[in-house]
Amino acid sequence: MPDKSTLEVCLTPGLLPLYPITGKVVVVIDVLRATTTMCVAIDQGADKVIPVETIEECLSYKGKEGYILAGERNGRKVEGFHFGNSPFEFMNGVVKGKTLVLTTTNGTRAIKMAEHSHQVVIGGFLNFSALSKWLISEGRDTLLLCSGWRDKFNLEDTVFAGALIHHIKEYFLVDSDSAFAAEKLYLNSRRNMFHFMKQSSHYRRLAHLGVINDIKYCLRPDLTDVVPVLKNGELVRADIRKDLEGEFFSLNDL
Amino acid sequence: MPDKSTLEVCLTPGLLPLYPITGKVVVVIDVLRATTTMCVAIDQGADKVIPVETIEECLSYKGKEGYILAGERNGRKVEGFHFGNSPFEFMNGVVKGKTLVLTTTNGTRAIKMAEHSHQVVIGGFLNFSALSKWLISEGRDTLLLCSGWRDKFNLEDTVFAGALIHHIKEYFLVDSDSAFAAEKLYLNSRRNMFHFMKQSSHYRRLAHLGVINDIKYCLRPDLTDVVPVLKNGELVRADIRKDLEGEFFSLNDL
Repeated sequence: MPDKSTLEVCLTPGLLPLYPITGKVVVVIDVLRATTTMCVAIDQGADKVIPVETIEECLSYKGKEGYILAGERNGRKVEGFHFGNSPFEFMNGVVKGKTLVLTTTNGTRAIKMAEHSHQVVIGGFLNFSALSKWLISEGRDTLLLCSGWRDKFNLEDTVFAGALIHHIKEYFLVDSDSAFAAEKLYLNSRRNMFHFMKQSSHYRRLAHLGVINDIKYCLRPDLTDVVPVLKNGELVRADIRKDLEGEFFSLNDL
Repeated sequence: MPDKSTLEVCLTPGLLPLYPITGKVVVVIDVLRATTTMCVAIDQGADKVIPVETIEECLSYKGKEGYILAGERNGRKVEGFHFGNSPFEFMNGVVKGKTLVLTTTNGTRAIKMAEHSHQVVIGGFLNFSALSKWLISEGRDTLLLCSGWRDKFNLEDTVFAGALIHHIKEYFLVDSDSAFAAEKLYLNSRRNMFHFMKQSSHYRRLAHLGVINDIKYCLRPDLTDVVPVLKNGELVRADIRKDLEGEFFSLNDL
């Protein structure tokens, strides 16, 4: 029997240089709100999402037919963009058939940093079960990359990483203190995740901007079965094996 | 009333560049085993402990009257040194009046990285209460620096940081996700810390070397009231204010 693949967690992009990612799957996690918004956009019919690092790069797409510019800096919509980074902005058909060009403080940067891995894939509570099944199905060495806040540790991405570890660890070799700690923090949070997240610094940052409903939405599990993957610098919907469709993991505890 | 001083935690030396330390107190934490051993050496009458980064630097003291060379790499004693890094090696009078020159994989490096702060101070469960009182008494902005393992997150140093936060947070302004997470992990661990630590990667690393008794000893709270501080590159016993002597915090839960 072959050895299991490894499952690790990198708590912030600032520590990514310590983790070799060549040949690995890297799950980029920015629960509040970038990777949640990416799932929503793909779920709502966007052709693709182009994550870019800078505002300038995003603005270079301005006026191009079929492109929508979106993103935030420090939680606020950027001047000249069509949208900010609230998942609600991308519903009701506005992105259908379009290309979303998105830049955010942490999440899009983390994607860029992981580009030379075997495959970048996007995770949030919204696609928790679909992502879990996709990771098990791929069966590769996997790194969960928390986007953090300006290279510092953050709570929400770590708790999400811990939820993944808790639910899929039997399929992988998990053997690091960061994975153990992330899982513990998830187990501490799952009875009332919103209450737990209220104690995070990012909650306070966003609450100040009046986006409590965004936060509540970002914590809702399994609203979609899309698994966005990076292909040639663009996020598109992964092909899901037929035998994996339909079944969901139990996240009732959330 | 003046604002409270801040209390932060840096989860690994790899993230230290994100934390300005000028003017701050930095508590260097390497519970298993460097900072514990430093407390023991000072408690047992060593004149001072010189933390050095390299084996070569340590060996440069070889043969000098009154100097003891000690340290480890990857948990093992270095060839040519008098001692390794087990706290038990420094008891029974062997360090009394001597200067200990110590190099370890993580702890001594973290000390060097924090040298340009206002004051480096050494923490472990052994001097938990004395250190807590010293920090409150200083009342400065304080950073808890976990030594980690080769710049990665580790469990034991984070749990210790969480214990400090839990017991002294009312005296400080604490407002970061890493502090919140560290405290949660401490609260998860305190009913049976040894059992909790058994799940850490460093436990497995050291257990393999047969030093279970070292680990148990390193988790025992309040065996000494020494607070080692760095003065001109050497760790010496801090002067403790008389009114702070004698009283101990309650760590009964440990």
